[in-house]
Amino acid sequence: MRVALGVQYDGSAFCGWQSQPHGKTVQDALERALREFAQTSLPTVVAGRTDTGVHGLGQVVHFDTELTRDDFSWVRGTNAFLPPTVAVQWAKPMPDTFHARFSAFERTYYYVLYVHPIRSPMLTGRAGWIHTSLDVDAMRTAAAFLIGEHDFSAFRSSECQAKTPVKHLHQIDVRQQGDFIHFRFRANAFLHHMVRNLMGCLVAIGRGRHKAEWLAEVLAGKDRSRAAPTFMPDGLYLAQVGYPEAFAVPPAQSGSVPWSTVWID
Amino acid sequence: MRVALGVQYDGSAFCGWQSQPHGKTVQDALERALREFAQTSLPTVVAGRTDTGVHGLGQVVHFDTELTRDDFSWVRGTNAFLPPTVAVQWAKPMPDTFHARFSAFERTYYYVLYVHPIRSPMLTGRAGWIHTSLDVDAMRTAAAFLIGEHDFSAFRSSECQAKTPVKHLHQIDVRQQGDFIHFRFRANAFLHHMVRNLMGCLVAIGRGRHKAEWLAEVLAGKDRSRAAPTFMPDGLYLAQVGYPEAFAVPPAQSGSVPWSTVWID
Repeated sequence: MRVALGVQYDGSAFCGWQSQPHGKTVQDALERALREFAQTSLPTVVAGRTDTGVHGLGQVVHFDTELTRDDFSWVRGTNAFLPPTVAVQWAKPMPDTFHARFSAFERTYYYVLYVHPIRSPMLTGRAGWIHTSLDVDAMRTAAAFLIGEHDFSAFRSSECQAKTPVKHLHQIDVRQQGDFIHFRFRANAFLHHMVRNLMGCLVAIGRGRHKAEWLAEVLAGKDRSRAAPTFMPDGLYLAQVGYPEAFAVPPAQSGSVPWSTVWID
Repeated sequence: MRVALGVQYDGSAFCGWQSQPHGKTVQDALERALREFAQTSLPTVVAGRTDTGVHGLGQVVHFDTELTRDDFSWVRGTNAFLPPTVAVQWAKPMPDTFHARFSAFERTYYYVLYVHPIRSPMLTGRAGWIHTSLDVDAMRTAAAFLIGEHDFSAFRSSECQAKTPVKHLHQIDVRQQGDFIHFRFRANAFLHHMVRNLMGCLVAIGRGRHKAEWLAEVLAGKDRSRAAPTFMPDGLYLAQVGYPEAFAVPPAQSGSVPWSTVWID
């Protein structure tokens, strides 16, 4: 049987998602816990391999097993063996046609940016920080140039393993609330470091270092060296993975992030 | 000259406020940073000595110095030597009559409680967690019995060094928002573990283990052993310290905690 899990984690506690020999990744922690609970090895396939420091609110994995357990037993049993920085949110039996990575047609990321002259200890690892105010309208104008299907090579890290740099970016929303600016990115898929590279460029525009139109030029140039430096991972959250309705994948339990209400329309 | 500082910290990274030989407290971190910046030892006096795991949003300290620095130099200079889990928010020269502890006539604490069947990795150390729903009205009714000047011995830890167990509790607010219940406690001063012991009792009442009236009996009994166990420190924040207006102490910069908007009336 194929089982899907919804997984949430504090990325600042891990060296990214993907398993590594040192064992300090989210995948390593999850697979250790599954092995403890199931008393057998259960390799997982993930929707989106997040980087070091990037958080998961609505991450999805699947694995195949002969074992039969209640859905909530998978949740409670696995959580009993996970550190406080990771938790399974739901479990659901799936048809063999479901694949956590290849069935996903859409990913949504949030970026939370704290704008204040003085850094906040309560937000370390949880939000990006910038000490000068930003021109939100300019960032919105710039973001609009990116919407649609494009070759995003200008925002792709050299380590990216994607087959093609062409992605369809559906939406970028920018919303200011108190001392925070909230960003939401929705695309069919993202390249390695793509959101952090886009954030670096948007912040450069918000600070007035470039005009909004510069982002259109960077995109068209397809040259990573013309874009701004990669922005810090602290405020980046994999919020939601979209699957065909037929699979009835439960929504991400993102109410646990205090600023999730920002995106309730 | 006497200088006051507003200090914010993530209590989960420290063994409480008060200096200890192992040096892993907030006071140790702050005094190390002050010494690095000022190139001389500057012992501090604090408004409220918080416990291990308890956060500071509006903590206040003072120290005496011969040095003259701009207010913002104290902030930026000290922060340069502090770990990411502590930050000075403001600095202000004060008359000698100001005393961070003895001039304070009021303290406000927040408790943030996450109510959900499954724990949240993003809230570990940041919010208390309870997996069953609570009767908020019963907790409010119970809280009302505590308001006023009382002997709070029933909620006092055996390690408490306060001269008297009589404190004046001005206000307890309980507000539900999404999956969170927010508590606000305002008193002239608190005994050691007093808020966490009150939280333990309120949660016991919220779960239906006791009637609201039980809290009045516990208070009257002045016996710690009749109260509920001390609740976890994770969701406890020293939000604000109140001083006479003449000192013009800057307000706590609590906008950096995403749920601070809960208490904007």
